[in-house]
Amino acid sequence: MKVGFLGLGLIGASFARALRDKPDIDALIGFGHRETTVRAALDLGVIDEAVTAPQDLLSVCDVIVIGTPTLLAERQLIELIQASEGMEKPPILTDVASVKGNLWRAVQNLSLPAWPSQVVLGHPIAGSEQSGVHAGRADLFECHRVILTPHPENDRDAVEVVKQLWEQAGAEVVLMPVELHDKVLAATSHLPHMLAYSLVDTLAHSRVSEDIFRYAAGGFKDFTRIASSDPIMWRDIAIANQAEVLSAIDEFSAGLDRLRDAIAKGDANAMTDIFNSAKAARDRFVLTGKPPERD
Amino acid sequence: MKVGFLGLGLIGASFARALRDKPDIDALIGFGHRETTVRAALDLGVIDEAVTAPQDLLSVCDVIVIGTPTLLAERQLIELIQASEGMEKPPILTDVASVKGNLWRAVQNLSLPAWPSQVVLGHPIAGSEQSGVHAGRADLFECHRVILTPHPENDRDAVEVVKQLWEQAGAEVVLMPVELHDKVLAATSHLPHMLAYSLVDTLAHSRVSEDIFRYAAGGFKDFTRIASSDPIMWRDIAIANQAEVLSAIDEFSAGLDRLRDAIAKGDANAMTDIFNSAKAARDRFVLTGKPPERD
Repeated sequence: MKVGFLGLGLIGASFARALRDKPDIDALIGFGHRETTVRAALDLGVIDEAVTAPQDLLSVCDVIVIGTPTLLAERQLIELIQASEGMEKPPILTDVASVKGNLWRAVQNLSLPAWPSQVVLGHPIAGSEQSGVHAGRADLFECHRVILTPHPENDRDAVEVVKQLWEQAGAEVVLMPVELHDKVLAATSHLPHMLAYSLVDTLAHSRVSEDIFRYAAGGFKDFTRIASSDPIMWRDIAIANQAEVLSAIDEFSAGLDRLRDAIAKGDANAMTDIFNSAKAARDRFVLTGKPPERD
Repeated sequence: MKVGFLGLGLIGASFARALRDKPDIDALIGFGHRETTVRAALDLGVIDEAVTAPQDLLSVCDVIVIGTPTLLAERQLIELIQASEGMEKPPILTDVASVKGNLWRAVQNLSLPAWPSQVVLGHPIAGSEQSGVHAGRADLFECHRVILTPHPENDRDAVEVVKQLWEQAGAEVVLMPVELHDKVLAATSHLPHMLAYSLVDTLAHSRVSEDIFRYAAGGFKDFTRIASSDPIMWRDIAIANQAEVLSAIDEFSAGLDRLRDAIAKGDANAMTDIFNSAKAARDRFVLTGKPPERD
């Protein structure tokens, strides 16, 4: 099997490294927008060969992994689908972007007679504070989950091939409806990023911001770690998952209003209920990796 | 110098351990509410002697460190001030609670002729996820800041004694008006705790909470770490610092509304401005420990 990588950043390079030397893999072929990235990917042995245009991957690969950020991945997926129209057996197309709904809708907006059966959308729940081809690690996905959001009209073999590639990289693959993926990721990842960015931005503009940052301690550092993430990547995620991010912000704001009311009223029981519920849910999540017991 | 510890939890026990064997220290004397805690403190060598009532510390100590949580510390400070009325040279009274305004107001509400000059309020900006006398560590305050909020009518020598005790424990001591302390701590510590508790509580009650906790990853774990803190301690902090916590929540909510608007309008520039400002402020904070440059 020949696997192509469109985009050779952290995720693409790590996936390629994880697949290197697996018995099924005949070649790892890459395309990168920057010449220096492509040269590094070849020098580091991340890929075996490079092509000079994304479309060139179509004729030489069995599977193409689009490893570019959210909005670019959307455009490239559409371009690859269009460029592979008329191919007798087009390669499987998959991706690693943080939002799935925008890709899904972009494909549907092509108004093809049916969902292109070789297109299997996916999202590895793994990352690193580092980025770029040099940060690629063969073990990045080990013991991490990869969510695939297959379409009912997907070729079952195509889904199976993508699943097995991720499993060979050490990941646990789960299948999920695209709407659920975007709702769950909005809650666990997109919303926390928005809160952390918004908090730090607000404090940076405070009248006493100098004292605030001078006396902030370890808890603040942990809590705001994700506010050091790439602004462009997160702008694109907020754009791509707009509806779910807004809905997550609104649910959060309603919850914060309830806590604010409890504090304003000095309602010790209401505060304790909220804090206990949160502590129990998080402790359970950390200890067992399981969701909280329902009331 | 004989130093008394009213409360032998993490902070009190760590302070006692840090002062052990310092040349100025003649004895470390403790009171704990639980018999088992007192016995452990003696067995572990945290304290040299124990007394059976908080007031017993007054006649044998030069300095008393109230090491109990926020609201209890307020009651005990008042009781010790009242019990030491009439003493020719009452011991210095200091504390380690997370909020200073409630203690300050409680002392003022005594309507004494003047601020009791031996009362020096303080707050070490250090902690641990562990608690209790067994968690005490001699190095807990090393390279951490301790904020003292002296009153203009404080005896200068009393402030100096408390300052030097903390410096002997390895801390950097800074002086700050009580209002600024409570505002800064509301922003950097109390607000983040409220946000983390509220977020996890809201997600725990979500229709898809099972999936949310199942697919949450490392960033979520870091972001919500402080939601595993002691609910009673944080309820008391929210009560003690009510006005500043409410004001911090309101400032945060206004900032979040601005971000929500930008997302709702698809205003990429406004989003990027917020994310860039936050990333710059946090990166600068982490790299240099310094506040962000003002606009």
